Amino acid sequence: MTAPRIPDCPLAAAVEHIGDWWTLELLHDACDGHTHAAHFEESLHTPPDVLADRLTILVANGLMRRVPCGDPTCDRPGAGSPHHQYLLTEQGRALRPLLLTMAAWVNQRLAPEERSLVLVDATTGEEVEPVLVDRITGRRVDTPECFFAPGPAASKAMRERYDLVDSRRTAPC
Amino acid sequence: MTAPRIPDCPLAAAVEHIGDWWTLELLHDACDGHTHAAHFEESLHTPPDVLADRLTILVANGLMRRVPCGDPTCDRPGAGSPHHQYLLTEQGRALRPLLLTMAAWVNQRLAPEERSLVLVDATTGEEVEPVLVDRITGRRVDTPECFFAPGPAASKAMRERYDLVDSRRTAPC
Repeated sequence: MTAPRIPDCPLAAAVEHIGDWWTLELLHDACDGHTHAAHFEESLHTPPDVLADRLTILVANGLMRRVPCGDPTCDRPGAGSPHHQYLLTEQGRALRPLLLTMAAWVNQRLAPEERSLVLVDATTGEEVEPVLVDRITGRRVDTPECFFAPGPAASKAMRERYDLVDSRRTAPC
Repeated sequence: MTAPRIPDCPLAAAVEHIGDWWTLELLHDACDGHTHAAHFEESLHTPPDVLADRLTILVANGLMRRVPCGDPTCDRPGAGSPHHQYLLTEQGRALRPLLLTMAAWVNQRLAPEERSLVLVDATTGEEVEPVLVDRITGRRVDTPECFFAPGPAASKAMRERYDLVDSRRTAPC
């Protein structure tokens, strides 16, 4: 792949972490509480070599940590990782809103009875509909009133990209 | 790649649409207001063959539509798409929360002065911090109180997956 034009785009950084189908589903399983390689394998039917590869990448990227399984009765050693478990790091857990937003994007196109996976509020038992708001004001942020802009650490390429955006706003087409 | 174990997982569907770096950045540019192939090329320095390929896929997947450019003064024909523009469909626009969540995930790990791309509220000029809440109750949904569960249309594989999740909750490890 050609080198990215704008190396500091955070969207590119995010998709590099979760753009792979298996990686995403492993994060999904980990958010659901799975911790052992054997659990992931049983849940996803991931080929062992793929599983070992993706878990290694997730650990290397700081999204999971591999720790000895503290349970002496553990009988689920798992592919390539005997008596270890894989736990989400803080960075890994912070990806959960992304998984919820992905599922919401698919579900909002479907009638309720057509949905395969739903997000449920344990206190009410009802399906919830995630929307994005500002943490401080509570106002919706997925509106034209909120827009991306170069931040303090923006590269020259990022600033040029947004100069183009500004020029388009006043150009005829 | 092996066939997915759970073909109806909405996360898999989402990542198939946006898991490619160029596709994601094209959606990012489109959300920022770019409409012409030449705009995308100028903004991202996308190789013309890659650009034409990704735009075709975005149209085929229903995220963009290709329409004649209505502006008679248009002088930006763009690679492979003379006098046409690419507009986000409703489904494509509905992906914006995913882009905002991706950027938020990267930014929350950085100090404000380290951020390359920020989301700004036009009414206040302040950077906003997107969080996920339920549209009806306003309660945060990225908490352990909200969990994924099989929906009405869940496949046998999806139901088995969540049977495993339930069994892990009571298992020793």
